[in-house]
Amino acid sequence: MSDLTLAVDIGGTKFAAGLVEPDGQVVAAERVATPQGADAETLWGTLTALLDRLDVPAALAGVGIGCGGPMTWPEGEVSPLNMGGWRGFPLRARLAARFPGVPVRIHNDAICLAVAEHWRGAGRGSAAMLGMVVSTGVGGGLILGGRLIDGGTGNAGHIGHVVVDPEGPPCGCGGNGCLEAIARGPGLAAWALAQGWSPGDAVTEGDLYRDAPGALYREEGTATARRLAADAAAGDPIALAAMARAGRALGIAIASAVNLCDLDLVTVGGGLSQAGDLLFRPLEEALREHTRMGFAGRVRVVPAALGQDAGLVGAAALVIAGGNYWSPGL
Amino acid sequence: MSDLTLAVDIGGTKFAAGLVEPDGQVVAAERVATPQGADAETLWGTLTALLDRLDVPAALAGVGIGCGGPMTWPEGEVSPLNMGGWRGFPLRARLAARFPGVPVRIHNDAICLAVAEHWRGAGRGSAAMLGMVVSTGVGGGLILGGRLIDGGTGNAGHIGHVVVDPEGPPCGCGGNGCLEAIARGPGLAAWALAQGWSPGDAVTEGDLYRDAPGALYREEGTATARRLAADAAAGDPIALAAMARAGRALGIAIASAVNLCDLDLVTVGGGLSQAGDLLFRPLEEALREHTRMGFAGRVRVVPAALGQDAGLVGAAALVIAGGNYWSPGL
Repeated sequence: MSDLTLAVDIGGTKFAAGLVEPDGQVVAAERVATPQGADAETLWGTLTALLDRLDVPAALAGVGIGCGGPMTWPEGEVSPLNMGGWRGFPLRARLAARFPGVPVRIHNDAICLAVAEHWRGAGRGSAAMLGMVVSTGVGGGLILGGRLIDGGTGNAGHIGHVVVDPEGPPCGCGGNGCLEAIARGPGLAAWALAQGWSPGDAVTEGDLYRDAPGALYREEGTATARRLAADAAAGDPIALAAMARAGRALGIAIASAVNLCDLDLVTVGGGLSQAGDLLFRPLEEALREHTRMGFAGRVRVVPAALGQDAGLVGAAALVIAGGNYWSPGL
Repeated sequence: MSDLTLAVDIGGTKFAAGLVEPDGQVVAAERVATPQGADAETLWGTLTALLDRLDVPAALAGVGIGCGGPMTWPEGEVSPLNMGGWRGFPLRARLAARFPGVPVRIHNDAICLAVAEHWRGAGRGSAAMLGMVVSTGVGGGLILGGRLIDGGTGNAGHIGHVVVDPEGPPCGCGGNGCLEAIARGPGLAAWALAQGWSPGDAVTEGDLYRDAPGALYREEGTATARRLAADAAAGDPIALAAMARAGRALGIAIASAVNLCDLDLVTVGGGLSQAGDLLFRPLEEALREHTRMGFAGRVRVVPAALGQDAGLVGAAALVIAGGNYWSPGL
């Protein structure tokens, strides 16, 4: 049996697949744009063609999959929000049939990114961490007691739906005032436009998607949010106010998570996180206002450390480091 | 070796101690009022005199302790908020010296109540639960994957300091807009008084403390909150508005916890929880508004099932069911 793990990362913008060594090194990776508007079997055919481009060994240690939610879990019947062709598609079972005799494991893409940061990124050694992605959506994964927390249905980590303002704007989830409704890139850009922001040209379309892993987190709207960040960096007052608004919302939601879960570390990745101090300074300010208990003051918020392979690394960790990141018996 | 566990429950109002069988039955219990304004050794003397009143067998399975926070954990040097005589008092070490050779374990009193509900109360069988106490304070404990979550420092479960309104009132923790600032009994009563509420006589002082276990959660102010609940039941419009305000704040904080931790169950105990539908109806309404994702809709919020022995049962569980409720090696 080979000691390589096949990792698959399924998003609305691209599919990625790679071979990962036991230490987390990605030794081969291939990517392809997600066919837009494709039906279930076309999407599956795109994935298998991608796998055929990898030199997959005859025997594998296993297969790890990250995929945009929602999904049934651990069964892995996926219905990614931005991929209408898959509704209840048995992705885990189909890959298990293709690679028989080895563990095939799946989790939400945002959870895989948190696992990657804990296993091989900025969260190494943390006993109590939240790994976040802030981009078109706001998602995450919780690691407590050094182990991935699944919650009852594999959905723990939805930091984007912590309520930060009960009078806040409607959210895609059907609620209102969620962190995601305020801090997601498109929401932020929409707020700035409503305040009279006129987007500059500091960011080109070519920057789109480049550094923001995670299916839900690299969709349309990211470019606009980057333009907003660039304009804020250039001193545009409305753009600055928008970044401060997102930062404060993030700080409040993180404070609630820290107080509830006694976290020592929060990693923040995704496109918007690259705004740097423009985002992190108001984030820190709001966080410290709302974490006054002694234990909570120790928390550190740091940028995610891994780049575009993070999704593959986290998916592989479900197999390679399953003792910490894979709790189901199956 | 006996199969009995000695359980100790230390609060600002009373000390309790009991002998607990392996199945969680409390077979003997003694209580004494906490000496007010006492120094460290007077408090310790009160506790040892209480233990002397129990027929403690020569050999025990162990000693479990619940104590009001804060404390260093798992070392168990306690500084209960309402007990000025103990500041960094080595309660765990002192009891370990008195009962050598057996496990002596300690946790926050609110966490012990959550553990009790999970082990022998309304939370039995839940894989992902939050056990709450709503009274003079608002506290709790988190059980995920069927195990007590400590967080990095034993402080996980502080649901009272989830932010429900960033523009909300100041909180005792130093922040503002925390659930506890709005929903704790005294805060609620103060709000009603400020709105012009004139307390009725439906609740007598004799009801004070009777049914609200947990040290932080049975202090001054509970009687006023009960009077408020009674007046609400009698139709007083300000009292009704106050209960609705607390219920909605609870629902919002619980929704954030459910979305973040993928909970299937929340138990609510403590004095204020006895207001019944007056509290639980607005709670449910706000909760359902803010838990719209598919997985979150399954959560149930139920009253705590255990009575005044709950603190002893939870403390004993740290020893008897330590595999689920005690993670430190020590």
